[in-house]
Amino acid sequence: MPGEIHPFRVARQGTSDFESALATLHRRGEADFSQVEAAVREILASVRREGDRAVLRFDEQFGGRRAPRRLVRQDYGGADALARLAPELREALVLAADRIRAFHERQREHGFRFDAEGISLGIRVRPMSRVGVYAPGGKARYPSSVLMAGIPAHVAGVRDIALATPLAGDGSDDAIFAAAHLAGITSIVDAGGAQAIAALAYGTESVPKVDKIVGPGNAYVACAKRLVFGAVDVDCVAGPSEILVLADDEADPRLVAADLLSQAEHDEAAYAVLVCTSDLMAQAVSRELAAQLEVLPRRAIAEISLRVNGCALVVETVEEMTAVADSIAPEHLSLHVTDPEAIFERVRHVGAVFLGSSTPEAAGDYLAGPSHVLPTGSAVRFGGPLGVNDFLARTSIIRYSKDALDRQGKAIMILARLEGLEGHARAVEVRLSGVRGG
Amino acid sequence: MPGEIHPFRVARQGTSDFESALATLHRRGEADFSQVEAAVREILASVRREGDRAVLRFDEQFGGRRAPRRLVRQDYGGADALARLAPELREALVLAADRIRAFHERQREHGFRFDAEGISLGIRVRPMSRVGVYAPGGKARYPSSVLMAGIPAHVAGVRDIALATPLAGDGSDDAIFAAAHLAGITSIVDAGGAQAIAALAYGTESVPKVDKIVGPGNAYVACAKRLVFGAVDVDCVAGPSEILVLADDEADPRLVAADLLSQAEHDEAAYAVLVCTSDLMAQAVSRELAAQLEVLPRRAIAEISLRVNGCALVVETVEEMTAVADSIAPEHLSLHVTDPEAIFERVRHVGAVFLGSSTPEAAGDYLAGPSHVLPTGSAVRFGGPLGVNDFLARTSIIRYSKDALDRQGKAIMILARLEGLEGHARAVEVRLSGVRGG
Repeated sequence: MPGEIHPFRVARQGTSDFESALATLHRRGEADFSQVEAAVREILASVRREGDRAVLRFDEQFGGRRAPRRLVRQDYGGADALARLAPELREALVLAADRIRAFHERQREHGFRFDAEGISLGIRVRPMSRVGVYAPGGKARYPSSVLMAGIPAHVAGVRDIALATPLAGDGSDDAIFAAAHLAGITSIVDAGGAQAIAALAYGTESVPKVDKIVGPGNAYVACAKRLVFGAVDVDCVAGPSEILVLADDEADPRLVAADLLSQAEHDEAAYAVLVCTSDLMAQAVSRELAAQLEVLPRRAIAEISLRVNGCALVVETVEEMTAVADSIAPEHLSLHVTDPEAIFERVRHVGAVFLGSSTPEAAGDYLAGPSHVLPTGSAVRFGGPLGVNDFLARTSIIRYSKDALDRQGKAIMILARLEGLEGHARAVEVRLSGVRGG
Repeated sequence: MPGEIHPFRVARQGTSDFESALATLHRRGEADFSQVEAAVREILASVRREGDRAVLRFDEQFGGRRAPRRLVRQDYGGADALARLAPELREALVLAADRIRAFHERQREHGFRFDAEGISLGIRVRPMSRVGVYAPGGKARYPSSVLMAGIPAHVAGVRDIALATPLAGDGSDDAIFAAAHLAGITSIVDAGGAQAIAALAYGTESVPKVDKIVGPGNAYVACAKRLVFGAVDVDCVAGPSEILVLADDEADPRLVAADLLSQAEHDEAAYAVLVCTSDLMAQAVSRELAAQLEVLPRRAIAEISLRVNGCALVVETVEEMTAVADSIAPEHLSLHVTDPEAIFERVRHVGAVFLGSSTPEAAGDYLAGPSHVLPTGSAVRFGGPLGVNDFLARTSIIRYSKDALDRQGKAIMILARLEGLEGHARAVEVRLSGVRGG
């Protein structure tokens, strides 16, 4: 329709516009930290050298805040904060925590042990000892992320879970304290940015070193997580959030637009993408987006996100729809189609799927149960939702009887000698019956 | 005993020597790539820009080898190579492959799905699509590592498993081809070093981009894996291999020494450490080390490893023995004690445990079943043996009925509005019965 203003680009399969939109989507995972890396390295080195003092200094310098009275709080008053919340907010937080906890209880893993022919083998599974959860401060304070990252660690059995987040120092901290309490957070580190990641990764006088750091943050935080990887484990380095909506001709454009906007409002760099089989549907969704944008509080953010990274890709068949979805490998996949289970079956790479038009992505963000901490930038090809398994360490168990070693010893020695490792062969030989080794 | 030459340091608890030995062990995980990082970044950027041509050029430059006729081989003739091996070597490799496969079959994970009150939730588990296994060439060619890294991926169901390794181009490749065949490797990339990692991570004309890269390598390989992390997944960045032996007064010093040497012979930088409760035991093991070193083919390597990184730590109680083990968090833990199961129960952080004096670490290196690809440098605090779970991607599944959303919608909206995300609230509101949204 000429003259109409589209909040996002509509591109039809077979056009160069379509190809270029898809190519842009395929490149979205490429994080470039070159702008911040030198500064982050300096922060990491300073915190490592100077400990608490450096954390407080950088937090004042970059966070624009006074140094907190206490960098670490064990007694953060979570139960009291929860009690102070408005009743309906308290109930909603408790409902969310209960549901997230119940879901993750199903993910527990117990390892195994078995014996056969004198050989006992197994995997022992134990929770990590200490975990750090990062949560941004300022405008992007999300108590829901504290639940979504903290509860899987708590269900795994992690004893010390530190939440690193710059506190506001006023009543607005209550929702964070309450969520921390519900998640089983055992201490709060009142700091943000790369300096908070450094404190967790290396430890300081008051912050104990952790085994793993999870949770999203800005470019400084993401770069810092990448640089400390190895010294500690980290979850996937998170980029801008993404939703891909697949819509067939029966979809309700109003609901599709609402779901796209709930992603686009997150961040100017967020991705809200529609794939559908009809040009009419793409146009209808675009008109709905325009209408709903008019009255959206975060309109300025959502408009930029839709214009820069949003698009409707019109394909010809359902097969092509699922193939495009798989090639994009989105964080969130929302299926506004008649048979969502069948379509889901055909999409391989996706972080979280929302089946059918009665399931808003927002339900998964807050209440459904699975963690909303998910890989972005097509990292769902090798990752998945944060879960209990992400907080476990495994040990393999090997025990041979003397007889079993007598039986297998020769094969072990042959393989060791093939690799030129005579010492390995002799460590077997010296144990074999009737052989004098050494 | 004055005048005696000890191959490694014996340090008694309570001395400064003990403290300094322990402090050195605690620092061992700190990989420093500053010497190679600039070169590796240049290699990664070149391969990304120029593809195959850059891979071949660097491989000639650094690997000191002629460019291979084919960079990638799908038809590497693994079955023929297996048939060409000496019968007893063939049998040993097949036995190892069978045992490793049987062990990993027990690790399969199936996800779950459940419905309650109109909400259907679950986790879908799928194998990654493409995985790269790195194996060093030259002096450190280990067919066993091809089995230990490839088989878990194959059992997970990964369809394309590329082995990147610089081939020798002669009959000495047969053991590698045979192991690749037994592991289910689907192609071989005839390249090594950071250029091979770059090819796998970014893809080239002939090497398809993978989702994950596993397997050990030199400093260039380790640094490259760290730098491509994010674009692809990687396993833990591996440092020098480690064994910690706990020995009580009943241990056989000859066996303890043989196990320590089987680690020390790997690499001048390997760690072979003994913790025992008796000075006499430490001295006896030291004498055995000296005697066994005399006739060890890799004596020069093992001597350096023992002198630089080896030591015997003499503690006073079994409690202290396990506490020291836990603080070291070793890759391999060998328990030469009367009740190894009880001691193992008290050590939390360990990659693989070898229970009792009939179980040489070499059995786990080759034949027992669990993968010998393990975290080093105390990364066992958050990692574990490479396993089937390392090659799976997970998707969370969320489906709400209309009724369920009507019941929970209000709580979702309260939480969304708490976080200032009105678009999220409206994506729920527009779906609620009897409400006109938009």
